[in-house]
Amino acid sequence: MDTDKEDLTDKPLKGKSTNGLSRKEFMKNMGGAMLSGGMLASLPFSDAEAKETTSENNAGLITPNTPRVDRVAADPTDIPGPISRRTPKTHEVTLVAKEVVAEIEDGVQFKHMTWNGQVPGPMIRVRQGDTVNLTVKNLSENTTIHNVDFHAVYGTGGCAKATTVPPGKDAQVSFKATYPGAFIYHCAVPRLDMHISSGMYGMIVVEPPEGLPEVDHEFYFGQNEVYTDKEAGEKGVHNFHKPSMIAENPTYVLLNGAKNAITPNRYGALEVDREETARVFMVTGGPNLTSNFHPIGNVWTKAWREGAIHNDPETYLQTCKVAPGSCGVFQMDFPVPENIMLVDHALSRYAKKGMLGIIKVNGEEQPEIFDAS
Amino acid sequence: MDTDKEDLTDKPLKGKSTNGLSRKEFMKNMGGAMLSGGMLASLPFSDAEAKETTSENNAGLITPNTPRVDRVAADPTDIPGPISRRTPKTHEVTLVAKEVVAEIEDGVQFKHMTWNGQVPGPMIRVRQGDTVNLTVKNLSENTTIHNVDFHAVYGTGGCAKATTVPPGKDAQVSFKATYPGAFIYHCAVPRLDMHISSGMYGMIVVEPPEGLPEVDHEFYFGQNEVYTDKEAGEKGVHNFHKPSMIAENPTYVLLNGAKNAITPNRYGALEVDREETARVFMVTGGPNLTSNFHPIGNVWTKAWREGAIHNDPETYLQTCKVAPGSCGVFQMDFPVPENIMLVDHALSRYAKKGMLGIIKVNGEEQPEIFDAS
Amino acid sequence: MDTDKEDLTDKPLKGKSTNGLSRKEFMKNMGGAMLSGGMLASLPFSDAEAKETTSENNAGLITPNTPRVDRVAADPTDIPGPISRRTPKTHEVTLVAKEVVAEIEDGVQFKHMTWNGQVPGPMIRVRQGDTVNLTVKNLSENTTIHNVDFHAVYGTGGCAKATTVPPGKDAQVSFKATYPGAFIYHCAVPRLDMHISSGMYGMIVVEPPEGLPEVDHEFYFGQNEVYTDKEAGEKGVHNFHKPSMIAENPTYVLLNGAKNAITPNRYGALEVDREETARVFMVTGGPNLTSNFHPIGNVWTKAWREGAIHNDPETYLQTCKVAPGSCGVFQMDFPVPENIMLVDHALSRYAKKGMLGIIKVNGEEQPEIFDAS
Repeated sequence: MDTDKEDLTDKPLKGKSTNGLSRKEFMKNMGGAMLSGGMLASLPFSDAEAKETTSENNAGLITPNTPRVDRVAADPTDIPGPISRRTPKTHEVTLVAKEVVAEIEDGVQFKHMTWNGQVPGPMIRVRQGDTVNLTVKNLSENTTIHNVDFHAVYGTGGCAKATTVPPGKDAQVSFKATYPGAFIYHCAVPRLDMHISSGMYGMIVVEPPEGLPEVDHEFYFGQNEVYTDKEAGEKGVHNFHKPSMIAENPTYVLLNGAKNAITPNRYGALEVDREETARVFMVTGGPNLTSNFHPIGNVWTKAWREGAIHNDPETYLQTCKVAPGSCGVFQMDFPVPENIMLVDHALSRYAKKGMLGIIKVNGEEQPEIFDAS
Repeated sequence: MDTDKEDLTDKPLKGKSTNGLSRKEFMKNMGGAMLSGGMLASLPFSDAEAKETTSENNAGLITPNTPRVDRVAADPTDIPGPISRRTPKTHEVTLVAKEVVAEIEDGVQFKHMTWNGQVPGPMIRVRQGDTVNLTVKNLSENTTIHNVDFHAVYGTGGCAKATTVPPGKDAQVSFKATYPGAFIYHCAVPRLDMHISSGMYGMIVVEPPEGLPEVDHEFYFGQNEVYTDKEAGEKGVHNFHKPSMIAENPTYVLLNGAKNAITPNRYGALEVDREETARVFMVTGGPNLTSNFHPIGNVWTKAWREGAIHNDPETYLQTCKVAPGSCGVFQMDFPVPENIMLVDHALSRYAKKGMLGIIKVNGEEQPEIFDAS
Repeated sequence: MDTDKEDLTDKPLKGKSTNGLSRKEFMKNMGGAMLSGGMLASLPFSDAEAKETTSENNAGLITPNTPRVDRVAADPTDIPGPISRRTPKTHEVTLVAKEVVAEIEDGVQFKHMTWNGQVPGPMIRVRQGDTVNLTVKNLSENTTIHNVDFHAVYGTGGCAKATTVPPGKDAQVSFKATYPGAFIYHCAVPRLDMHISSGMYGMIVVEPPEGLPEVDHEFYFGQNEVYTDKEAGEKGVHNFHKPSMIAENPTYVLLNGAKNAITPNRYGALEVDREETARVFMVTGGPNLTSNFHPIGNVWTKAWREGAIHNDPETYLQTCKVAPGSCGVFQMDFPVPENIMLVDHALSRYAKKGMLGIIKVNGEEQPEIFDAS
């Protein structure tokens, strides 16, 4: 399965049709402010800033109209499969900006900004040389402008300038994936740090022409940190808190958008069998913190720094930095049955702020490797 | 010398015998809470959390019973030597959790949690394919549970689940070192960030089968940051301060557990001769901060990222990141006589928070390389 | 052009002659305090600390005598060119410490400490095996001691001990560049974090004997973070604020010493033509923060970690960490016309704290690569 001709919009949220004015019409109506600034226009987003009609803190407020959803956490296994194709292809991809309310943990409501209702946004998978026809939709019930920046794209703002749209509008752009690797995409309006903190990031994998090594499983994770006006665990509505973001001091640090999302205590752990292998795709949205990504009780057998899957991997790394605005790709072995905990090894983020995922390895004990009997 | 059949317990602290109930008996008496949780049990440490009988801040308090010691700073030269053996071996290793009071700097008392009374804990050194029979002892005068997580181990919690013991108890586990590298070990109870901050981390070196390159010296360092309720330098008892840890804003950042520990102003500098070589083993306990490890007046001739001593090194790196929960291995040359200062190049940690070690290079001036006359 | 026999002092600031007492005479007059401390002297800067006659916060204050200048932002193109020479050479380099007032953004005055009036300081470029005769001048109108630490130097303090001079004095030292790479130099007095934060850092490039790959452009950038007693954007004089530095919570994060310095909104963007190539030299002064350096709308075609230009590059990296006290070297391709934004991808530093540079790529649209029409 790949993303070809697939609308990645998830099911739970049914926004009304967003096919109103196209972005080009919108910009025309705006008087072409973006293009009239001469040299000023080379600050690509300065015009967009002028279009924000509410304060940053207010943009994070939950209103009676904000849709409620049960879950934003992306399913780590719900991703396109490896590419066996050896010829170029054109993909139709739609990313839908959705502002929703979901719980970070039991009793803690937060207004997430998402791509297609999930955090991280859908994984897009192409082959080097493929073309992507991208549509960005901003639902009419949203409160602010959105756009998208792909690190896999040569072009102003990585698509962001051309995809900036107000609620109820959409925009189209095409790009060729000219270089290989795993790359972040994220909202890049002037308040991009707040939008990414709220969940607006995902990954595009550009496979090298020869494809990737075979593995038994592939898992997809994203880390972002959330800045709120309450302490972690305090019940009630948590509103976005700008001073905490400026101080880079978050309330929550989350794997897939919720506290302990991918564990038995929330949406369930992942499961593999002993002697299988897995590839882990990790994107750090940030907006500010670097993940120190470590599998407790295991090791990264192979690690591709910055998601550069075409370079030679380093082997047996324990804790890999995945910078904000970057990706890591890792291969794992499972020689013993165990529960592996994926954490940010800046451990207060695990122990106090919610960052945890679990992979359960099934199979017979191997006491010559690990014996706790 | 290697660690075979050696009890790594240091001399200064004489705890009474800890051979009471074994961990298995302890868990049985606890009603098997750990195993009865079904899927909940896959959060390996949730049961242990229930056993913490005091608040995190209280766990850091010094009581009349907390043993006083003169020094926790590990001697960087007191480590097992390189392995020349080319056959597998089984090691008996004992790690003893010891909560002690020692000065961070003159007049500043702090309750350290340590392995065997030293920070970082003893360096353990094995060869890929060796087996370790590990005993974890929790002294009866300690105040809380402890355990250990080895990044060199395949198995739940990297041994942590199987070694969680209350004061006065011990636990045994066996593991094989199946992959090479330099890896951290650390306490991994639910409040692991507080325990590591207080000193509970060390390094296990798993040499590749062919061993390591020859050098004239080997030095062992560890960095951890301490969060207290006072300002750096303020005299008196410094108690652990949880809000500072949550904000990742420490009072002290220490090399080997004390301010300027390995300098003439405290326990003495290291000394080498010109034209010798040295290998530096560095473990960052954290729990939260990354070291930007730099030798002032020198350079890392070779650097193995993440302690991956089996990978090809990079050469002539100035400032290497050693993430919390990771290790770096470095090789140094000493072409001129000088005083080299080892620092975290996030320089306020050196200038304001105590992070400094010194290597004194003896020998004749070499004015064609460096001439300050 | 290289730096041979060139006084790097910039034009705008005309300090009176600094050829008073040499450093050696100065130290003699000080009673040889540095050398009399026995083992204490192995803390190379402890003597210098005693010479600071004012508090750290006061050292940051603007006085009526502090020279006002229009600009401290270094021109990214004003650097020595690549070295084609294949024989050793001796360079005469002068670094002048200048404390000046300049605006960080419109209406925001700050007292910068600079090398030769620019931030980052002048790029010095030599070939491995070359010798540098270095003079450090401390202008008489300055308020405190200064010195310089080169990461390219074997020797105590990387020159810092031998170049510590009070206002009105100068010092000379010679060193050979024995290993290749791009290295930071920075002031390294006891309050080095405050001095670097205020702008006292730059880069020395030590080319390998065979030189560097050919490119069409070379650009030079530096990042430092500024800690003040006001909020970003608040008009008026911003004084240095020590508690913010200790908390590593800056007011501004700057590329080349001013908000949006290398953009059309301040001193102008850089310009290149489509299909050209560029090499980017990036030095992170810090003192505390790591840059997550990313070119929005582009990618690092080749990246040399830690400035290690003699090692094999990694390819197609999106966001590279440049640690405080380190450098990165990057190669870029420009296949499409666009405005590339250079940012720290800890995005609040771009969105809220001023970190931005722009490269404008001129040429014909390439709709088969990027089509926003």
